[in-house]
Amino acid sequence: MEKQLAIVLLSGGMDSCVTTAIATRTHTLALMHVNYRQRTQARELQAFSDIADYYGVPADRRLVVDIDHLYRIGGSSLTDTSLDLPAADLDRREIPSSYVPFRNANMLAMAVSWAEVIGAEKIFIGAVEEDSSGYPDCRQIFFDAFSRVIELGTRPETHISIATPIIRLKKYEIVRRGIELGAPLNLSWSCYQSESKACGRCDSCALRLRGFKEAGVEDPIEYE
Amino acid sequence: MEKQLAIVLLSGGMDSCVTTAIATRTHTLALMHVNYRQRTQARELQAFSDIADYYGVPADRRLVVDIDHLYRIGGSSLTDTSLDLPAADLDRREIPSSYVPFRNANMLAMAVSWAEVIGAEKIFIGAVEEDSSGYPDCRQIFFDAFSRVIELGTRPETHISIATPIIRLKKYEIVRRGIELGAPLNLSWSCYQSESKACGRCDSCALRLRGFKEAGVEDPIEYE
Repeated sequence: MEKQLAIVLLSGGMDSCVTTAIATRTHTLALMHVNYRQRTQARELQAFSDIADYYGVPADRRLVVDIDHLYRIGGSSLTDTSLDLPAADLDRREIPSSYVPFRNANMLAMAVSWAEVIGAEKIFIGAVEEDSSGYPDCRQIFFDAFSRVIELGTRPETHISIATPIIRLKKYEIVRRGIELGAPLNLSWSCYQSESKACGRCDSCALRLRGFKEAGVEDPIEYE
Repeated sequence: MEKQLAIVLLSGGMDSCVTTAIATRTHTLALMHVNYRQRTQARELQAFSDIADYYGVPADRRLVVDIDHLYRIGGSSLTDTSLDLPAADLDRREIPSSYVPFRNANMLAMAVSWAEVIGAEKIFIGAVEEDSSGYPDCRQIFFDAFSRVIELGTRPETHISIATPIIRLKKYEIVRRGIELGAPLNLSWSCYQSESKACGRCDSCALRLRGFKEAGVEDPIEYE
């Protein structure tokens, strides 16, 4: 039986790279990437393209969207370079300044529009809830609520669900799952701060490095 | 007491014009407009600016967002000029080809991002459910579901609700409400088809004209 079509929101980070590896087992991939003028936009786009090439996804099943409203709206150190990125603090309890207001809803809305037109039945997103930075729009309860919005806001004959296959995993489990599935982790990019070598100091690097360490595996990318 | 801030999604059509007139009674206005490469984009932007000027809304409380992903994704005769717009059929039961997949979710997501940063407590949208074109994302049940997404997907201290003050009104009631409140209906633009004089033949013109007729009022804009 031919596989059905699924969209994967592929930022190019480790989590979405592993999510792509999971999605490709059951679905034909359509990959979406959003440039929202985040600090490491060019490097993330490179990672997206490299991973898409790795999985042999043709051009008509890749969608790269450029938006500037999140940048213009501001409110996040991830897009506003006049604000400092928070230093890594994996025990932090409040929402860090790198939170981009309602970003995942913006991206999911775009993905649903595309899914409705190309006939994809699922949208995969590599959100991580527990072992994460604490963003409100990375929680399963948020995706459940968004699923209801999809059901009600699209044509009645359209059925699109959201898959969050790694949301309950710890970072080290994501690393192991990725290795198991042959995900090209060497092509992924997680650093929020720099585009040549990963900084190793931002939240995202700290989470990634801890994940590799706890998995007992060496991270294949280079750090400063 | 100083009024709280509300965002109005102002397309420049009659419905959002009247919604703006309703919102300004209770809130300080912040007006948002989205250019999504719809057929009459330039004319709608003009209507937005004219209405914003009429209400004296300063530049820092206007946000005009340009997006091209809905156009590139396609699937709608409102953005794809190779598809014919549906002729007016006010008894139609199926969803017309002018439906832009999941458009309102895309716009609401942007508005919520902005609301979170500027501290707006409400988002007004001039959706009309009953006397409308039958788009799934214009129904109250859709907005209720989206409200839940907002509650879960933003910072815990953020409380943003969606106001749909004209959703249950018939078009003629919207006309009357607008006149009562002094809404500048002469500055609004509803036509999907043309940008100089309104065509009078598309769904949107037909709904508007019937509304004025049933209200016993002459539409102040020019028709072909």
